Amino acid sequence: VRITVLAGGIGGAKFITGLKLARPDAHITVIGNTADDIWLFGLKICPDLDTLMYTLGGGIATEKGWGRDDESWRIKQELAEYGAEPTWFGLGDLDFATHIYRTSLLTNGLSLTQVTARLCERWQPGVELLPMTDVRVETNVVVDLPGEGVKAIHFQEWWVKHQAKYVAKSITQVGAESATPAPGVIDAIAGADLVLLPPSNPVVSIGAILSVPGIADAIKSTKAPVVGVSPIIGDAPVRGMADACLRAIGVDTTAAAVALHYGSRSNGGLIDAWLMDEVDAASANYLPAAGLKVDVGPLWMTTPATTAEIAKRALRL
Amino acid sequence: VRITVLAGGIGGAKFITGLKLARPDAHITVIGNTADDIWLFGLKICPDLDTLMYTLGGGIATEKGWGRDDESWRIKQELAEYGAEPTWFGLGDLDFATHIYRTSLLTNGLSLTQVTARLCERWQPGVELLPMTDVRVETNVVVDLPGEGVKAIHFQEWWVKHQAKYVAKSITQVGAESATPAPGVIDAIAGADLVLLPPSNPVVSIGAILSVPGIADAIKSTKAPVVGVSPIIGDAPVRGMADACLRAIGVDTTAAAVALHYGSRSNGGLIDAWLMDEVDAASANYLPAAGLKVDVGPLWMTTPATTAEIAKRALRL
Repeated sequence: VRITVLAGGIGGAKFITGLKLARPDAHITVIGNTADDIWLFGLKICPDLDTLMYTLGGGIATEKGWGRDDESWRIKQELAEYGAEPTWFGLGDLDFATHIYRTSLLTNGLSLTQVTARLCERWQPGVELLPMTDVRVETNVVVDLPGEGVKAIHFQEWWVKHQAKYVAKSITQVGAESATPAPGVIDAIAGADLVLLPPSNPVVSIGAILSVPGIADAIKSTKAPVVGVSPIIGDAPVRGMADACLRAIGVDTTAAAVALHYGSRSNGGLIDAWLMDEVDAASANYLPAAGLKVDVGPLWMTTPATTAEIAKRALRL
Repeated sequence: VRITVLAGGIGGAKFITGLKLARPDAHITVIGNTADDIWLFGLKICPDLDTLMYTLGGGIATEKGWGRDDESWRIKQELAEYGAEPTWFGLGDLDFATHIYRTSLLTNGLSLTQVTARLCERWQPGVELLPMTDVRVETNVVVDLPGEGVKAIHFQEWWVKHQAKYVAKSITQVGAESATPAPGVIDAIAGADLVLLPPSNPVVSIGAILSVPGIADAIKSTKAPVVGVSPIIGDAPVRGMADACLRAIGVDTTAAAVALHYGSRSNGGLIDAWLMDEVDAASANYLPAAGLKVDVGPLWMTTPATTAEIAKRALRL
């Protein structure tokens, strides 16, 4: 069975860990968000791809959910000693090795797809990990910064440096309009037996992947059922600050609102079915009328075993 | 008093440490060899400039003479885990930070001279450190490699990977013919009160600096006296494998032969005076006839204090 998953970072990685447990026989292709990518100190950083790779490959700092286990921070400290900017992005020493190697391979002419495959030779994540595109696409956020006025800044600056505390007036994937899906992405969607949208951020993770021309159309037209898992439980994000992103695109932070934002494929939308938490059961009643099949069950991904149960529920849907 | 020193790595750095002690009032300009530079993992490594900067700035691994004190090797290990090549060059974690920052500044359009000045803002080496050129020049060595035949390899591959065990058929500074001295280099030589050639490698350090068009001529024509310190004691290099380099250019590994290789400025050569060790006193007799002033004294740079005595002797000459 071929399962294709669109994924951001931490939430997607956790969900896929459960999915692997739930269906160890499945061939899983993961289409990772690369619009969070950022060039820092001349190095190409791919936070979401790395979170997926490290998590599924057993190298993640489990508590934090990002970066490497047993990490040290000497290079970050050294760069600060040199006065190098920025200082707000957390890059550990082991993580730096990944970025150095990736950047050197890119400089040698390999595509991000090829480089990701090379990195995964070491990590053996047990899935086929594809970047959404080989082209540079970066999520920008328009904010009103104190003393600086209204300006567009890189998503990471908004998210990590400012902790999303300034209202996002708009969120855009810069470069997406001329991007193309990476090799294998469209085939993985068209040829899947099941497409899953895990509880990743609907705007800056799933939304960013969908911003690449051709990917949304492939999802709309695949013969496989498309099942989404709500990233919102009890009107709050499972993790992170998805509410700040949803507000920017005018979507309420509720499980039902996100489902309606994706929309039913029967009405030209993206999903066939939606899995939401028990606490949101009341609002599940809206969705069948909008053409969506719904299931309700516990969605907190507290352990790999409970996450596997969530994945199984999504598979049944 | 303005003193300008041409320098390679370890030997030059030690000598300049003594020179600073001997003449704390002097304005010292150091013209560093950059032909040992190498691009590894997409990063620009400047072994000689860094050895000078770390040594004079108090960050050197004193025992080894290169690299950072209190160093760790996690990134090197990680890159090996990824199968990244090469694995034979020793780059520590703290050192990597220097290379990352330097490369990012170069990528942003700064010259190597500007980048070196920026790095020295942190290290405060107490000298003005200039690269010999801002242009890429790399020492190549032609060797007969077992199973590979005669080929040109980067100096570092010959020196570090192969420990100079294959005979150097020739040693060339690739790119030198079209290089120009870095800003300030010619002025530092022309405007000096004294020019010193410390006991650096005459072929791949001093020789590499002299390969940049204009530098040798500036030394020949400066009004300042030019004094050299022998890198050979008792027919063996003070340090490293200078004999393997001298052989490639047909010069005997003796203090007198190196002096004659540089030659007297009165005969179109590069130096006025030559400082050699007591054990080589017998051969000192040759040199006055070749137009060279000679002094003899202990040349082992065992401590900064003894090195300061050597520098004082050179200053008196």
